Amino acid sequence: MMIRDVKAKFVGEALGHFVAESSWEPMPALMRHEAKRSLLNYFACALGSASDPTVGIAVKLMSPAADEQSVTVVGRSERLEPMGAAFANAISANLLDYDDTHWNTAIHPAAPIAAPALALAEQRGLSGTDVLHALILGVEVACRMGNAVSPQHYARGMHITATCGVFGAAAACAKLLNLRAEEIWAALGIAASQSAGIIENLPTAAKNVAVGNAARNGLLAALMAQEGYAAAPAAIEGPFGWAKAMGDDFKLGEITRELGRQWEFQAVAFKAYPCGFVFHAIIDACIELRATLRVPGRDILDVLVQGNQLLLDRGTRPVVTDRDARISIGHAAAIALLRGRATPEEFSAAAVTDPELRALRMKVRAELAPDMPTGAAAVTLTTRDGRRESVLIRHARGSRENPLSDRELEAKFRACAVHSAERSSERIRRLWSLESAGDLAALLRLMGAP
Amino acid sequence: MMIRDVKAKFVGEALGHFVAESSWEPMPALMRHEAKRSLLNYFACALGSASDPTVGIAVKLMSPAADEQSVTVVGRSERLEPMGAAFANAISANLLDYDDTHWNTAIHPAAPIAAPALALAEQRGLSGTDVLHALILGVEVACRMGNAVSPQHYARGMHITATCGVFGAAAACAKLLNLRAEEIWAALGIAASQSAGIIENLPTAAKNVAVGNAARNGLLAALMAQEGYAAAPAAIEGPFGWAKAMGDDFKLGEITRELGRQWEFQAVAFKAYPCGFVFHAIIDACIELRATLRVPGRDILDVLVQGNQLLLDRGTRPVVTDRDARISIGHAAAIALLRGRATPEEFSAAAVTDPELRALRMKVRAELAPDMPTGAAAVTLTTRDGRRESVLIRHARGSRENPLSDRELEAKFRACAVHSAERSSERIRRLWSLESAGDLAALLRLMGAP
Repeated sequence: MMIRDVKAKFVGEALGHFVAESSWEPMPALMRHEAKRSLLNYFACALGSASDPTVGIAVKLMSPAADEQSVTVVGRSERLEPMGAAFANAISANLLDYDDTHWNTAIHPAAPIAAPALALAEQRGLSGTDVLHALILGVEVACRMGNAVSPQHYARGMHITATCGVFGAAAACAKLLNLRAEEIWAALGIAASQSAGIIENLPTAAKNVAVGNAARNGLLAALMAQEGYAAAPAAIEGPFGWAKAMGDDFKLGEITRELGRQWEFQAVAFKAYPCGFVFHAIIDACIELRATLRVPGRDILDVLVQGNQLLLDRGTRPVVTDRDARISIGHAAAIALLRGRATPEEFSAAAVTDPELRALRMKVRAELAPDMPTGAAAVTLTTRDGRRESVLIRHARGSRENPLSDRELEAKFRACAVHSAERSSERIRRLWSLESAGDLAALLRLMGAP
Repeated sequence: MMIRDVKAKFVGEALGHFVAESSWEPMPALMRHEAKRSLLNYFACALGSASDPTVGIAVKLMSPAADEQSVTVVGRSERLEPMGAAFANAISANLLDYDDTHWNTAIHPAAPIAAPALALAEQRGLSGTDVLHALILGVEVACRMGNAVSPQHYARGMHITATCGVFGAAAACAKLLNLRAEEIWAALGIAASQSAGIIENLPTAAKNVAVGNAARNGLLAALMAQEGYAAAPAAIEGPFGWAKAMGDDFKLGEITRELGRQWEFQAVAFKAYPCGFVFHAIIDACIELRATLRVPGRDILDVLVQGNQLLLDRGTRPVVTDRDARISIGHAAAIALLRGRATPEEFSAAAVTDPELRALRMKVRAELAPDMPTGAAAVTLTTRDGRRESVLIRHARGSRENPLSDRELEAKFRACAVHSAERSSERIRRLWSLESAGDLAALLRLMGAP
């Protein structure tokens, strides 16, 4: 088998060459800017949940390290050795369901990839540019792996952010370690033996463990490859390899099609709301209906949400915890109709038990519209006095077709980092100037403050 | 769904109650003795490969810890925090393919389960009896999980020692932490999101990463559950759970059938030779043929090995490295015919390149005998002077039906720990007396010496 367009016999070999041979100079300005947007979004999310007990427990269970080896935990005073920091930071960046989304695969790549890349770069004294480059390459590897196994891999129950994220983490860290193509190939093969995470656990903290492990173990894979640990040449696509073991189909061409010319990184979008991305269209529609009808919650008779099977599969569980609220059709509609916004506060424990929100959640019905694209939704609201209005949203705010502007991303950052608002301007300024040499250590020190 | 025989709705719930409610006092003497045999075998294997560079790299990449938190790395002077020690010790215990085997599933349970149990017990000052008990329960959980998904899980490409070992590690550590049934249930659910390892990587060091991770991450699962991390109730058997994501069938009844009355732990055997267990019958047959025919290698015309599909699938790759030699029909036959033994030396790099062994390997042919049970093999040797002799071995040395005696296990220990022979008698004595209180710390200090 010869992989098209690339002189390589194996998937890992092709990706190893791609990562090893990539250089920063020809990277288009658009990509460089998008990488900075990704980090702005990553730090926003991580700061937003840094004080959550879920993150505190992760930090507590990872090993502290000698000072000269330890690196930043975002938004916290503790410092950890790099694998531990990667674990904790990936968890905080993903915890609020507010992070980035690769539309085709539903991978949220920055948490498992930026976290280990930043930890390794901080420990080794690497530059901001090194991290931006590694992040782009890692996201590219993770999303192409995801494309190759989608949608069957997810449909089996594999949590693709974690199971593919570990490959991206390995690739990004391997680049930062300046590994040769053969070593990166080995790192990806080692990642294949560490790929884990199941959908069933998504509404629980066990989800966070899988995302944290993707970061931690991807870094480990790169370090082990550097030390000479090997993997099978066909660890990914072989007869007893990752793709077959954990999926039902493998589209080899997705790995190398236009590799280095067309970037999956550009198909990653940043969320406008801290919940599953399929619910964003509902929120947009309900904010619009609220503005149009100006009806109080008690005067709403009925809310009908129409969307495709994925939306209904993911969004119709009862809401007991804040985790449930992030994947609830009813909660998404209720907060937008009552409050006209969907900030982290609308997904807090207090919001879950708010009597008015709860009452409105009960009035929301979901109906299958099989032809509706993923990410789209229609909402029809009926008032007690007989008015009825429908809104269809094809491209929600924060989708690739309707992305957040740089200013909106900055506003998201400020809203997430509300407890350290006085530091936000300086943090944002340093992120935008990350390409200037020597900025990384100072930036991370600044991000480590609560 | 009500799980038969156990008042539990979910697999993790049933196993959580089983582990939480188990007590040491009613444990039969036979089981207690078998647990000590298991640890004797575990330490033999770990000591035998403690100085291998594969282990050295694993130790180097794990974090050192403050003295009061650090625990023993078998056969090495370094000390590590418990997750790191569990990682390194599981790797050394499994590296030589000399460890224990659960016949029905091909799980090698002690490496991923004893390693984290010992690390945790040492850190917390627990007793030898605590570890024996935790080991028995952990092996029971891992092997029953394996039974429930065998043979389809392995056939897909999942490396079952790692993918099921993590559940056993979580269960053993949860018992040592004295967790409640609900917390153990959560630990098993968290383990489900950390279950990883693929068959394709078996001939490489990436295999060792998966086995080490099963130990390290099983311990992490128990620690996280203790801190309140939750998992989905049906993380194992749910529609998007572990069993479906990583296998094609789930035999629920295998989890709870005669649970606590019939022990899978008793279906675990200790290897007589440091290679894949399906090759042991070939070695026994060839040792017998060597004694009968007394023919030098150059006078052997042809060696025909007959076995089932599993034997042929696993054993017909070319032999380039010592890892290949451990899963080679040709190498197994050649060493036994030429040297009349199969010790670690016969699987060294020197043996792989030995011209006489290489020449004889080339004369070995394999033929499918579909009805041959797994673990059995027939060997027919033809000499240049026209003699022909066949030997069929149904139950190889070290199988459940033909187990190593206590004295043979002691001899295996001494052979593995050949570089520290002067300590072997004291080490063996302390292992047999592990039920006496307060022995564990002293034992582990003794095992930490090179």
